[in-house]
Amino acid sequence: MTFQEKLDKITKKNNSLLCVGLDTDLKKILTHLQGRENAQFEFNRAIIDATHDLVCAYKPNSAFYEADGQEGIKQLKLTCDYLRQKHPEIVIVIDAKRGDIGNTNEGYVRYVFDYLGSDAITIHPYLGQEAIKPFLARPEKGAIILCQTSNPGAGEFQNLKVNGKELYKIVAENVARDWNTNGNCLLVVSATYPKEVAEVRKIAGEMTFLVPGIGAQGGNVEQTVKAGLNAKKTGMIINAGRSIIYASQGADFAKKAREETEKLKDEINKYR
Amino acid sequence: MTFQEKLDKITKKNNSLLCVGLDTDLKKILTHLQGRENAQFEFNRAIIDATHDLVCAYKPNSAFYEADGQEGIKQLKLTCDYLRQKHPEIVIVIDAKRGDIGNTNEGYVRYVFDYLGSDAITIHPYLGQEAIKPFLARPEKGAIILCQTSNPGAGEFQNLKVNGKELYKIVAENVARDWNTNGNCLLVVSATYPKEVAEVRKIAGEMTFLVPGIGAQGGNVEQTVKAGLNAKKTGMIINAGRSIIYASQGADFAKKAREETEKLKDEINKYR
Repeated sequence: MTFQEKLDKITKKNNSLLCVGLDTDLKKILTHLQGRENAQFEFNRAIIDATHDLVCAYKPNSAFYEADGQEGIKQLKLTCDYLRQKHPEIVIVIDAKRGDIGNTNEGYVRYVFDYLGSDAITIHPYLGQEAIKPFLARPEKGAIILCQTSNPGAGEFQNLKVNGKELYKIVAENVARDWNTNGNCLLVVSATYPKEVAEVRKIAGEMTFLVPGIGAQGGNVEQTVKAGLNAKKTGMIINAGRSIIYASQGADFAKKAREETEKLKDEINKYR
Repeated sequence: MTFQEKLDKITKKNNSLLCVGLDTDLKKILTHLQGRENAQFEFNRAIIDATHDLVCAYKPNSAFYEADGQEGIKQLKLTCDYLRQKHPEIVIVIDAKRGDIGNTNEGYVRYVFDYLGSDAITIHPYLGQEAIKPFLARPEKGAIILCQTSNPGAGEFQNLKVNGKELYKIVAENVARDWNTNGNCLLVVSATYPKEVAEVRKIAGEMTFLVPGIGAQGGNVEQTVKAGLNAKKTGMIINAGRSIIYASQGADFAKKAREETEKLKDEINKYR
């Protein structure tokens, strides 16, 4: 099964474009979990158990686990293993924002695809297609290229004009035209820049977007969905992290996370 | 002590601009080490013991360790711990090529600076200065920004012209002008593109360059050194990995690594 087929299937089954970002920060999770073994995993499992029928994907950001070294990597691995065993139909995106020369990227491929067993990874475009080939070579794995990122200072390079056209559009063009021979490329475009999402949609045809910036980062749902949908009314994985997983700091955190997930899923679907 | 002070001190003490890349691939190391516990670390320790008086820095690339998940991170941590205990004066660069939004970069800061205890990290520029601030905020740690990378396809975006000027030059200009308020920024420029190294030197003043591409990647030593030196005849950390650490596949690998290190150190110094 290709990456896109897996994504299409779960998007349809759960009627959801929503992805929950498992950016689990030990300092922000419940006091009663903090002292326990595998606290990050236990937190993630509770979130997954409460939300798995409402999402198309989960997206752990590797940084929140690497922060604790070996122990953190263990928590991320436990989370991915649990997802693959209990919910093999749900897409796992590792938000790792990697990108090295080709020979070295083989190591990252082993980390995210073979060791963690994830379905997709986020990738920096700066080294070009030639370097990124180890990621592009596997049709069953998604290669999600950073295009227009969500941060306030994203424009420093991404909005520079090359022959009158912004760099993020050149990235989108090159990915759509040359990089996507296996049909497994996606682009990161951000809900904090809905006008740019619409511009990238014009360039990228039916290609799926990974869309951060909803929730804590302030992106507008209606504008983003309308700007980003493809002709099939899909083509988006819309991520929300902190606004869902920290919806409550109390013992009801999983229940509140479900409520937020359901609310956001329905709001997204209202504009499809 | 600032990062630059630490680097200047060891560069002078060992009279060396050379950095050994600890890109240790389990499949390429000695058969008699492979079965052993901590084989990657044992290999690195032998290389370090044989070369520590000839170098200014060691640069493990995180990908070669992440490839094995938790176990690999343990090997990298053991290597960094050993370096800090036995040779605290030598600079440790973690080649991790990270770059996320600000909130998330805090996790990478904890991984490379606090957990591994390294002195510097390589960073993607695509998200701009605003995102990279958690790395820039620590004057005792080097923030090494990718500018002109060593791979054959580097030019796909890096050589695109913005108002007649290549993107890699804009990256160098922005870093030199705005990002370096703590004096802890460095730039990656590659020995495989010596003309570009000279161009970046014109832009970057006395700033130190991390220079990959010597050895297995084919960069020319004389051209690179002449193009990259600053006014003090330093300003470069020149990395060689595979050509040193795999100089021999036999039981004499550490001895051969020392010979290659000495030869390359001397060749670099010949052109200073």
